[in-house]
Amino acid sequence: MNIIVAGGDGFCGWPTALHLSNLGHNILIIDNLSRRSISRELQYESLTKIYSIHERIEKWRQISGKTISFRNMDIANDYAMLVETVSVFDPTCIVHLAAQRSAPYSMMSVEAGNYTLTNNVLTTNNILRAIEHHNKAIRLVNLGSIGVYGYEDRNFVMPEGKTALSGVDSQNDKFTIAGQIPLNPTSVYHLSKSHIASLLNFYAQNFGINITDLYQGIVWGTQTQETGIADELSNRFDYDEIYGTVLNRFVVQSQSGMPISVYGRGEQTRAFIHIQDTVRCIEAAVNSGASIDNEVEVIHQISETRTVKSVADYVAKLMNGTINHVPNPREEAEEHRYELEHTKFKQLGLERLSTLDDNLLDEIQNSVYKHLDRIDKSCIAPKVNWKNANHKPSIEVVDAIAS
Amino acid sequence: MNIIVAGGDGFCGWPTALHLSNLGHNILIIDNLSRRSISRELQYESLTKIYSIHERIEKWRQISGKTISFRNMDIANDYAMLVETVSVFDPTCIVHLAAQRSAPYSMMSVEAGNYTLTNNVLTTNNILRAIEHHNKAIRLVNLGSIGVYGYEDRNFVMPEGKTALSGVDSQNDKFTIAGQIPLNPTSVYHLSKSHIASLLNFYAQNFGINITDLYQGIVWGTQTQETGIADELSNRFDYDEIYGTVLNRFVVQSQSGMPISVYGRGEQTRAFIHIQDTVRCIEAAVNSGASIDNEVEVIHQISETRTVKSVADYVAKLMNGTINHVPNPREEAEEHRYELEHTKFKQLGLERLSTLDDNLLDEIQNSVYKHLDRIDKSCIAPKVNWKNANHKPSIEVVDAIAS
Repeated sequence: MNIIVAGGDGFCGWPTALHLSNLGHNILIIDNLSRRSISRELQYESLTKIYSIHERIEKWRQISGKTISFRNMDIANDYAMLVETVSVFDPTCIVHLAAQRSAPYSMMSVEAGNYTLTNNVLTTNNILRAIEHHNKAIRLVNLGSIGVYGYEDRNFVMPEGKTALSGVDSQNDKFTIAGQIPLNPTSVYHLSKSHIASLLNFYAQNFGINITDLYQGIVWGTQTQETGIADELSNRFDYDEIYGTVLNRFVVQSQSGMPISVYGRGEQTRAFIHIQDTVRCIEAAVNSGASIDNEVEVIHQISETRTVKSVADYVAKLMNGTINHVPNPREEAEEHRYELEHTKFKQLGLERLSTLDDNLLDEIQNSVYKHLDRIDKSCIAPKVNWKNANHKPSIEVVDAIAS
Repeated sequence: MNIIVAGGDGFCGWPTALHLSNLGHNILIIDNLSRRSISRELQYESLTKIYSIHERIEKWRQISGKTISFRNMDIANDYAMLVETVSVFDPTCIVHLAAQRSAPYSMMSVEAGNYTLTNNVLTTNNILRAIEHHNKAIRLVNLGSIGVYGYEDRNFVMPEGKTALSGVDSQNDKFTIAGQIPLNPTSVYHLSKSHIASLLNFYAQNFGINITDLYQGIVWGTQTQETGIADELSNRFDYDEIYGTVLNRFVVQSQSGMPISVYGRGEQTRAFIHIQDTVRCIEAAVNSGASIDNEVEVIHQISETRTVKSVADYVAKLMNGTINHVPNPREEAEEHRYELEHTKFKQLGLERLSTLDDNLLDEIQNSVYKHLDRIDKSCIAPKVNWKNANHKPSIEVVDAIAS
């Protein structure tokens, strides 16, 4: 089928484009290459070398014989170009990954927060309007975030999508309504994702657009079956304080002889998924579509939940590293029950997603050891303080990590 | 106290500024006068003549001896100016009415929708960041919308703020969480208001900012005790298809000898409040503040709920008008139970808010009869079709109303 991958040059987007192309779909990437410009702005580079989008696409053509098209476009700010593109390419499905994806980036400054809010909301609104304009039957698969629920202590398993919620009103009448449990985003980035969720609801309900929203956990791993084939196809490995996820930072710290810096006690629980499973899940969502008319299909796209400390312990064990607890620059509970229902992908045939235990050693050997000469130790210490966005974290925190 | 009224040149903002000034508070209006530029863009004028902000403020100084300050500022796009202003003026409270407030405007075009989303979200985020930057003790009173709940059939009284919601998880364990009932905004404007609600939550919870969010019904009426004193102080009376609320359109239609146009059967229920009560409620919210730390105080700012048809019937009775049912350009339930708890303002001493039955005749005589020569009949027929935002309403609808 014809599929548009919006944000197809990014960390999840590029492997998705390759995976869907490999399956025989006709792929058009639309992207303004903002991940590259933000990387230049921050002066933080991927550990793996990232080739230009044209080099990537050309290499893929040579290897696979398949053509991926690309159009450079600011989806948030050029609706006319988007509509024209959708009309001409006439996709069956749009996979939407055109969002600024870093929570620390969104908390870095007022400007970065406002950019995150507007970019993420307007890309979504424009894509939905373009679907409504051209053909309401175009399916939308959105990459959401599991972080929209927040990280409070929840003494239950969080439902996957809508559930029956009951209450008692002021007249003492019992009532039941269908709805999600309340979202509680803990960063401006996660706020933008909750705003996107409300937009998706609106368009599904009012215009009947078929939408699947994948609430994804922290993605780890670097290469997929396709990106690993050649250097030119390589995916990103970010380990800096802004875009580096907890796992990548830990691995690079250990490799560099630095202690692994765990924020606070490390009993924060997070959900994880490997990038190879990300693209498999997106494939399943593209093929299945939402199951109920006028309702967004929310799927929890995760393979496991773990505490940050257990991740640190595992990395330390594999790499003979040490652990250093540093003051937490984020506003969050450091110990909480955090369980998520995740059965929908099993029902779609993805019985078993891979875990850290399965794949971490491979990841370290193939993504990190090959690029040791590119490690920049100075970019790991956090410079964004979530508790007071106008002030930097204390010198002690930065020193403790940079040392 | 020092109070900033953001959006203090608008329909609710100007009466609020005057009311709080009259009570002895030191008022600074910040506004980019966007309501005036949108009025020029649409070529729809207020029935009442609106004087410049400088004429308004000067007249108020002459009459009351009180000075209202004004700074022309695009709050959404000039954070530096906002922060400087907040730092210098050092307010105890900010009343936030700096939002594009028309649902039909937000559905008019992609551009108008995107403007509504970004303007309303960024004004809010910038104000909250400025509070966090300058002084976290500054109280925020936000003017929200009761429309964020949507207009589905609800077989219960909708709670005012958080309530206990119960469910059963996938392990068959019962759970209870505190939260609002799910919001279900039915226009891009209402989406922006639900986005604002999530921002307010985030800042209350993570930064401890004291926030009251007033979920307001449809405001009717034109003048308050202060705006009615002199022509130069007059408030807006909008009756066009975009900014005119249902009541204003009905009154002008009847006055002009046109039938009152009711969308669909007219059994849609809406909540209403008079502009005089709006300013009284805001005063109460400014004085009381939120009652729970790290939690937004949501208050339903309404005096009554009525069906659109009952409003039409009442106007027709008072003005000897006739009623014409036309196809509904909006996507909405046309018959539904719609009841809202509203006890918090009673607890704050506002025992009795006025109703249509109390005040409508006064309103007609004082706001409409005085300005008959300014009526433009052509601006009432709807040109925005909510079911398909890319197409205009059918000619029959427009003709039925314009005739």
